[in-house]
Amino acid sequence: MNTVEVNHHEYKVSLVGAGTGDPELLTIKGLKALQNAKVILYDALVNPILLQHAPTNSLKIYVGKRANHHRYSQEEINWLLVQYAFSHGTVVRLKGGDPFVFGRGYEELKYVKSFGIQVDIIPGISSSIALAGLQAVPLTHRTYTDSFWVLTATTRTGQLSQDFQLAAQSNATLVVLMGRRKLRLIADLFIQKGKADLPFMLVQKGSTKDEKVVIGTAKTIADLADDQGLGTPAIIVIGKVVSLHPAYCQDYVRQLKTSVA
Amino acid sequence: MNTVEVNHHEYKVSLVGAGTGDPELLTIKGLKALQNAKVILYDALVNPILLQHAPTNSLKIYVGKRANHHRYSQEEINWLLVQYAFSHGTVVRLKGGDPFVFGRGYEELKYVKSFGIQVDIIPGISSSIALAGLQAVPLTHRTYTDSFWVLTATTRTGQLSQDFQLAAQSNATLVVLMGRRKLRLIADLFIQKGKADLPFMLVQKGSTKDEKVVIGTAKTIADLADDQGLGTPAIIVIGKVVSLHPAYCQDYVRQLKTSVA
Repeated sequence: MNTVEVNHHEYKVSLVGAGTGDPELLTIKGLKALQNAKVILYDALVNPILLQHAPTNSLKIYVGKRANHHRYSQEEINWLLVQYAFSHGTVVRLKGGDPFVFGRGYEELKYVKSFGIQVDIIPGISSSIALAGLQAVPLTHRTYTDSFWVLTATTRTGQLSQDFQLAAQSNATLVVLMGRRKLRLIADLFIQKGKADLPFMLVQKGSTKDEKVVIGTAKTIADLADDQGLGTPAIIVIGKVVSLHPAYCQDYVRQLKTSVA
Repeated sequence: MNTVEVNHHEYKVSLVGAGTGDPELLTIKGLKALQNAKVILYDALVNPILLQHAPTNSLKIYVGKRANHHRYSQEEINWLLVQYAFSHGTVVRLKGGDPFVFGRGYEELKYVKSFGIQVDIIPGISSSIALAGLQAVPLTHRTYTDSFWVLTATTRTGQLSQDFQLAAQSNATLVVLMGRRKLRLIADLFIQKGKADLPFMLVQKGSTKDEKVVIGTAKTIADLADDQGLGTPAIIVIGKVVSLHPAYCQDYVRQLKTSVA
């Protein structure tokens, strides 16, 4: 090998989806990337136990958010990826869920590629799909719905996305990420559309030992979630398929009793 | 152990998502389930190389569809799962993508559970999310869209779902599964809504060595896909995020040239 010539393909960044929290929901390809990593940059939603797959002497750098401020800005993360690729060779960017679902993965990809560095993309199990399924709630079902729609409640403007107006009219199962703080606002939107009885499910820290689930309807879900102390991170699943959850019937009957009491 | 008493927890069915085709996109948990399986029932969209993870003496039964008829009906598959759980103990139901995305996984879950048999759910990498990402096309992007909507073009009635009318009005990235044969119909819908220039991407056999990709717009995609011989299975990705694909600009410029020629 020629040691003078610069070969950019000695440098590589792998954008790896870490999955939903259960460390065994990492893919085999993601596992191999970690095993070969010299440097790992990981997020708040990544289960830190995954870092044990990486070599002991690899650098493990936490770049997640803290409370209400960023520990590193997106620009700093982009730059760290490039810097470590050039200094250490093989970098894994370990992101919660899938790298391209609300993850700003594309910004990282584009920046790193602009330096001629190879980028490998390794998809991950996304909470937007898996957490409903793990509750035995299918996102699609021949009787109830032909589609599902994944939205974020936290946009750049702080407003609820206009897509929610259409979503409330559609027959799609809706999965809302980062929506815990806007749960009441979202539920109210459905009540206004005449869908007060539409089933809602809230899953906090899904697929981990701290998982909490609340089942209700547009009318009841916000109070139930407050009463039961559900915090973040959480996903909201909205649609008739939620009525297939084993806890739905009992809960619904209980609500009826409460409302006539 | 008491060998007379029936302990239903000796019987277990695992509903495992096999991922998109790349065998390394199986999860670690899915891998372990296969390694412990006595019987595996697998579908047409599952990469058969995954069966090599299972014990040599395990039963591997293909229950996928053939051409235009079912090899096994859904009722037969449900019954086989129960029968093999009772006769062999540990059964893996290996399904393409994720078990609960257009997979009729819920029907299998419900049937098997009704016999008191334990069902484990192991999510898989769904083509609905991963195949766009593997093309470096993010489903969400701060500049373009806050959401993505996954639809099937093949409904029980054979008609295009009503959700497509709303979808064509929304700002969501759309991912259409099982849509190859309805591509022209879908593209026409967007042209009628004044979105002839909306970017479209078609991915056939994504994440495998036979992967083919066509990039175009509502106006051009159906002809391009026919010209380039794209068949099934394929996913359609619709939305501004497709313009981020490296091949988009050139293709678009080429189309403009064609149309003024």
